[in-house]
Amino acid sequence: MTDLSIAAAPEAAAYTVVMKFGGTSVADAERVRRAAERIVAAKEAGSRVVAVLSARGKTTDDLVAMAYEVSARPDPREMDMLLSTGERISCALTAMVINDLGHEAISLTGSQAGIVTDTSHTKARILDVRAGRIDAALSDGKIVLVAGFQGVSTAADVTTLGRGGLDTTAVALAAALGGDCEIYTDVAGVFSADPRIVPDARKLTQASFEEMLEMSASGARVLQLRSVEYARNHGVRIHCRSSFEDRPGTWVLTEEETMERPLVTAVTHSTDEARVTLTGLPDEPGVAGRVMTALAEANVNVDMIIQNEPESMGREADMSFTVPRDDLTPAREALAPLRAELGIADVATDARMGKVSLVGAGMRSYPGVAAKTFSVLGDAGINIEMISTSPIKISVVVREDDVPKAVLELHTAFGLGADAVRPEDPRGVHRPTVPSR
Amino acid sequence: MTDLSIAAAPEAAAYTVVMKFGGTSVADAERVRRAAERIVAAKEAGSRVVAVLSARGKTTDDLVAMAYEVSARPDPREMDMLLSTGERISCALTAMVINDLGHEAISLTGSQAGIVTDTSHTKARILDVRAGRIDAALSDGKIVLVAGFQGVSTAADVTTLGRGGLDTTAVALAAALGGDCEIYTDVAGVFSADPRIVPDARKLTQASFEEMLEMSASGARVLQLRSVEYARNHGVRIHCRSSFEDRPGTWVLTEEETMERPLVTAVTHSTDEARVTLTGLPDEPGVAGRVMTALAEANVNVDMIIQNEPESMGREADMSFTVPRDDLTPAREALAPLRAELGIADVATDARMGKVSLVGAGMRSYPGVAAKTFSVLGDAGINIEMISTSPIKISVVVREDDVPKAVLELHTAFGLGADAVRPEDPRGVHRPTVPSR
Repeated sequence: MTDLSIAAAPEAAAYTVVMKFGGTSVADAERVRRAAERIVAAKEAGSRVVAVLSARGKTTDDLVAMAYEVSARPDPREMDMLLSTGERISCALTAMVINDLGHEAISLTGSQAGIVTDTSHTKARILDVRAGRIDAALSDGKIVLVAGFQGVSTAADVTTLGRGGLDTTAVALAAALGGDCEIYTDVAGVFSADPRIVPDARKLTQASFEEMLEMSASGARVLQLRSVEYARNHGVRIHCRSSFEDRPGTWVLTEEETMERPLVTAVTHSTDEARVTLTGLPDEPGVAGRVMTALAEANVNVDMIIQNEPESMGREADMSFTVPRDDLTPAREALAPLRAELGIADVATDARMGKVSLVGAGMRSYPGVAAKTFSVLGDAGINIEMISTSPIKISVVVREDDVPKAVLELHTAFGLGADAVRPEDPRGVHRPTVPSR
Repeated sequence: MTDLSIAAAPEAAAYTVVMKFGGTSVADAERVRRAAERIVAAKEAGSRVVAVLSARGKTTDDLVAMAYEVSARPDPREMDMLLSTGERISCALTAMVINDLGHEAISLTGSQAGIVTDTSHTKARILDVRAGRIDAALSDGKIVLVAGFQGVSTAADVTTLGRGGLDTTAVALAAALGGDCEIYTDVAGVFSADPRIVPDARKLTQASFEEMLEMSASGARVLQLRSVEYARNHGVRIHCRSSFEDRPGTWVLTEEETMERPLVTAVTHSTDEARVTLTGLPDEPGVAGRVMTALAEANVNVDMIIQNEPESMGREADMSFTVPRDDLTPAREALAPLRAELGIADVATDARMGKVSLVGAGMRSYPGVAAKTFSVLGDAGINIEMISTSPIKISVVVREDDVPKAVLELHTAFGLGADAVRPEDPRGVHRPTVPSR
C-alpha cells in the first residue's frame, strides 16, 4: 500500500523535443557553449533531446569560396559533398562540449540520422525519415545532434536540402519522433509586425499553422514556408524562440490548439517586389497560359496576377503580375521571345514595389477587414496598386516607399500593439510554455 | 581476314590503378588542378582510376584548432566526425575540377567507399573493404575519388585511421580492386640514402616489400610501415613517385618481381632516438618482462634492447634500450614506480642518440656485411653504442652527431652512389614503368 501513489501515477511518456540552431547560434566557441548548455538544460529537465545544427556561417562561406576557386560551375553532387561537411563540423564541436558537460552526446550525419531524400542535388526534398538510430540513442539516454540541411539520396549520395531545409530537417525529425520542434533564432519569436518599423509590435504567443503559412509567404522571415507546411501536414508543434534569452517565444499550433482567434494577428510586408505589366495582349484563349509557362520555365516566381478585361470589343487585354525583384531580369528575358510571337504591345516593369499583408484566422467570419484596410490606406494617402486575398489574408501591393507607413497605420488601426485594447479577443492572451496536448 | 589483327589480340583486362595524393598535393587550387590533370591523364591512358586524397594540411590544422577551442580533451568519436570532413572537402573539390575537364568523377566518403573498420576512434584499423560501389562506378567509366584516412566502423560510426592510414587506404583499395597503388609524394621516390646528407644518393627503381619494411622501420619516411605491410600481405605493387614530375619513381614489389638484388640497397637513418639504461637490475626471472610491460602500457615504443649478463655472481644485470625521443618522458614516468619495487640501482637516459641502418635483400647470402660495417665506422672514428640485425638489415646506434658521417661513409663504402661501380649487380639497373605481372 505504501507505493500506491507511484502505482497510481501512470509513467508519463518522456517528452521529446527537437531543437534547431541556426548558423549564428554556433558561430564561435562561446556560442557553441551556450547552445550546448541550452541543450543540456532541456535534457536535465527530463526531455529526450535531439538538436539539429546548421553550419557556422563562416564555414559555409569558406566552402563555397573554395568551390568557386577551382570551378566556375561546381558539379551539384560534389557541391553537396563539400557543403555537407559544414554542419558535421558544428555537430562534432557541440557534441564535444556536451560530453565535457557530463552528458553523453553523439553527432549524426543526415545519412546516419535517416534523412532520406530524392536525388535533386543542392535542393533535395525529404522522402522519408528513418529515425530508428536516433530513437535507440535517445532510449540509451544520449543527446543526439543531427547535421541539418542534409540527407542521403535514394542513390546513396550525400544531398543537401533546398531553401528552408534546416528548419524542415528539425520539423521532419520531430514528426518522426513524435516530439515538438523548437526553432532557435536571433529574434524573440513571431511579431505582430516587424519591430524595426513598428516600435510597439507585440510578440505573438501563438499562431495557427495557416496563419504562419500566410505570414511566411508574405514576408515574415522567422520561419521558412516549407517547414511550416511540413509541420502542418504532420501536426508538429513549433516553438519559435530566441537563442539569446530564456523567455518563451511563439508557438505555432493547429487552429484547434490556439486559444485566441483575433481578427488580425499580424501585419507582414516585403520590400523586394517588382511589377511587370503587359499591355495589348491578344484576347485569345491560352495567351495567359503561354506567358505563365514561359516564366515558370525560367524559374520566375510569380506572386500576384491581375488580368483586365478587354476595354472594348478591340480584343486587347492588359496583364500585371508581381515577381521577386531578383527575378525581374530573368522574367524580362523569358518574355522577350513572346513579344513578337503573341503580338504584345508593351512590356513595362517597375522594380520599386512593396507588399503589405494582414493575416488573421478571425478574418474568415469578418468580411469588413478588406473595407477597413482600403479606407485606412486611403486616409493615409497611400495608393493601392494591386490586391489579392485569401480567407485569412489580405495583401496589397503599394509603392516600396509607402510600405513602412502602410504597416504602421494598419498595425495601429487594427489594434495589434502591445498596449492596445483588443476588444475582439475578450479571453485575453494565453501564454503556454509547453502547451499540453 | 582484314580484322585478323584485332581478333588475334585478346582483350586485355583494364589496368586498375589507385593513386594516392597527400595533403601537399591538394594544398591549394593550383595543386588540386595539377592532381586532377594527373588523374585524368591516367584515365585517358585507358586505366580504371581511383584516387585517394588527403585533407589539405591547413584544413586539418584548422579543424584541430576548432576542437581544442571548445574542449580540452575532445571526445574521440566526435574528433573523427570532425576531422573526416577534411578529406571530403579535398575529394569534392578535385571531383569538380575533373568534371570540368570533361570526365565524370564521383567523390565517396570512406563509408561510401566500403572501408569498414573497427571501433577504435582516431586510430581505427581496416577490417574489410567492400569495394562494390567503386567497382560499379569504374565499370560505368567514372573516375572515383575516395576520402582517405577514414572509414565506417562496425557500429556505423565515422572513424579515422591511425598513423599511416592514408597510404593504407590506397593500398587496401588496390588490393580489393586487384590494381596497383601509386603513392604521390613530394620526393621523387625511395633513395639509397637521404639526399640531404648524401648528395649522390641514387633513386631506387625498385625495392622488395621486405626491404621497404626494414627501410620504413629504420627511418625512411616516404612510405608508411603499415601500408607496406598491408601491400606485402595482399601482393599490392606500390609505385612511389613525385607529385611534381612525370618520371617513374620507385616500385615496391615482391622479391620474385625485383630484377636486381644488390648486397645493400639503402642506408637509412633516424636522429630522434633516445637510450635508457637500467643498472643494477636483480637477476631474477620476469624482471625484464615487468620493465617491458610497464613501457608497453605507457604506449612507449621500445626499439633495440640489450641486456648484459650479470658481471659476476653478484646477481645484478644491466639493460639498455632505445625509444623514440618523444617517448622518453613517458618512459621515465613508467619506470619510476618500478625502481623501488624491483630495486633498480639507477636509470640513466641519453636523449641524443641516432640510428644508422643498412638494408638489402642480398645480405642474406653475404655474411661479411656486418664486419665491413663495423670496420668502416671504426676507421671513421665513430663509436657503435648498440647493434641489432635481421637477415636483411644491420642497425647500429651511434651518437646523434655522428649520424651524417656514418651514413656518408657507409653509402660510399658499399658503392650505393649514382655513379658508383656496382660489381655486385652485373645485370645493371632495370627500369620498369609499369612492371608486367
